[in-house]
Amino acid sequence: VSKQPERLLILAEGFSGDPHYGKTARGVLAYGERPVVALLDSARAGEEQGGVPIVGSVRDALAAGPTTALVGVATAGGRFPPAWRELLRDAISSGLHVENGLHQFLADDEELSGLARAQGVELRDLRKPPAGLNVPTGANLELPTKNVLTVGSDCAIGKMTVSLELDRAARARGLASRFVPTGQTGIAIAGWGIAVDAVVSDFLAGAAEQLLVEGHERGGELLIVEGQGAVTHPAYSGVTLGLIHGSAPHSFVLCHQAGAVEVEGYPGHPLLPLRELVELHERISLPARKAKVAAIALNTRTLDEGEARAAIELAEAETGLPADDPVRFGADRLLDAVLAVV
Amino acid sequence: VSKQPERLLILAEGFSGDPHYGKTARGVLAYGERPVVALLDSARAGEEQGGVPIVGSVRDALAAGPTTALVGVATAGGRFPPAWRELLRDAISSGLHVENGLHQFLADDEELSGLARAQGVELRDLRKPPAGLNVPTGANLELPTKNVLTVGSDCAIGKMTVSLELDRAARARGLASRFVPTGQTGIAIAGWGIAVDAVVSDFLAGAAEQLLVEGHERGGELLIVEGQGAVTHPAYSGVTLGLIHGSAPHSFVLCHQAGAVEVEGYPGHPLLPLRELVELHERISLPARKAKVAAIALNTRTLDEGEARAAIELAEAETGLPADDPVRFGADRLLDAVLAVV
Repeated sequence: VSKQPERLLILAEGFSGDPHYGKTARGVLAYGERPVVALLDSARAGEEQGGVPIVGSVRDALAAGPTTALVGVATAGGRFPPAWRELLRDAISSGLHVENGLHQFLADDEELSGLARAQGVELRDLRKPPAGLNVPTGANLELPTKNVLTVGSDCAIGKMTVSLELDRAARARGLASRFVPTGQTGIAIAGWGIAVDAVVSDFLAGAAEQLLVEGHERGGELLIVEGQGAVTHPAYSGVTLGLIHGSAPHSFVLCHQAGAVEVEGYPGHPLLPLRELVELHERISLPARKAKVAAIALNTRTLDEGEARAAIELAEAETGLPADDPVRFGADRLLDAVLAVV
Repeated sequence: VSKQPERLLILAEGFSGDPHYGKTARGVLAYGERPVVALLDSARAGEEQGGVPIVGSVRDALAAGPTTALVGVATAGGRFPPAWRELLRDAISSGLHVENGLHQFLADDEELSGLARAQGVELRDLRKPPAGLNVPTGANLELPTKNVLTVGSDCAIGKMTVSLELDRAARARGLASRFVPTGQTGIAIAGWGIAVDAVVSDFLAGAAEQLLVEGHERGGELLIVEGQGAVTHPAYSGVTLGLIHGSAPHSFVLCHQAGAVEVEGYPGHPLLPLRELVELHERISLPARKAKVAAIALNTRTLDEGEARAAIELAEAETGLPADDPVRFGADRLLDAVLAVV
């Protein structure tokens, strides 16, 4: 059966430019393998982002020939804002498949799934966990792979991006590297994975183990595992630690937004200093597989180039580890540091 | 509507004496408020445990007049062994409600739920999360309560028991203390709670916050939160950390099985030394609410009294903290230590 190649319309209403709530849109635009033909955000209709036209409605996107509408926003709690129902109805009624990474599953919605059946389109809930998850079996420590996990001082600061850049750089050197997706955006980009934040808590580490096994089956000898949350995040730390232990990394890359001192969206919750974060991750790694932080990945997006270089030097001085911004200056220095440790 | 007071038959086939897999049976026998009229474990039929007769079949228990069969075992992964189906069928066919704390929900089983409907009995899945969970709102840091969380070097070493003993001792002193149940056995004992290991990972901390709010609504000023797992456990650490951050404790009580050096059931996974565990918990507590370990609760079940006292002294010397076995020697010393810190 030959399938029509997919062409994406990304639904990013209200958040197309937002580094946090629009991170799915931004990630898929930057790293996805399927072409993006339009981005929907009515307040910015007529502009463009990353070379892709921004439209104000599903109707306005149809001329570009999309096959699939991807929900390109994240929401705290993972539920759809009420206004989105209209948008989803429009997409389905226009004959588009819908791919959704929120906790609220479209397939569970009677109206939308009825509409999808009538239109013959698929509703794909990227965060829906596979059946049969369980606790780890020990395979995570027995695989011959070398595992690298990105961790961070906060959410939404670039752990997925750093993982993708490290994977690209490793493949460019001819290494058998695989990016291991653990969240909805990573899954939309790579086409496989498990959104670990959506699994039953008891099976977090087991899900991470299963991802290592699949990464190895997909040919990975070096597995670059996309991290989630932060070990001191007031809402998401459980996900982070389950992933740390289940993915049994040989080394960490610690991601940080240059200059950030407080958890985003949680006023009164300070970030730990980088040096303390390095020590905390090394202490909390599995006693049966102690992991070292190999390098610091600094997100310098908000700084000019001189400031960025100064921030990188400061992070190196503070931690005694190699630091760099892999998006701005390339991932090779970080990759060298990782390969020296694993 | 007056309800018949419940009388429990505990189903503990194969595990009635097991400290790990039989911990639900043992916990409900020791601390439950509903009378237990029989314990089912065919290999031990005719014996008794804690004054309760052990029977070999549901039929043999009926003379004692149970109203409700409680699944009194835990399984890794939380699924029923195949042989249990017959037992569950017998209980339902005999007109008993069934209360179940495994991850596998009875209400989802078509045969058993059909049988239950026909018999007019309830299938209660204690681990089924409430609807509408979300991330924390910040209420956990705003409540006027003082929160104590039991943590541990491993699973199934007595965190729930220590919590219940601390709560009893505090109530005996006239304090407005509440035990806050976070697992199936605690829920079966106290009649409320959320099994945090069964919630979607992203909502772990939010579920813990919701439990604090409910504990306060139930009159608690001192909330003794039942801990889960261990921060360095290879399977369950995610649950532990989500609970640590969501329940925002003012202090921890660190539980340890005297003499244990390896994670139970996970050969090759060493436990961290007590002193390192104390430091790790204090470091990983929320920066916005740093928590201290107030005391060490030592499980000395396998030791004679002289050995137990020596083990307690050793733990005190190793950590510089008060230590005691609250089951063996009373909870007052630990409670004093907790009240000195919160």
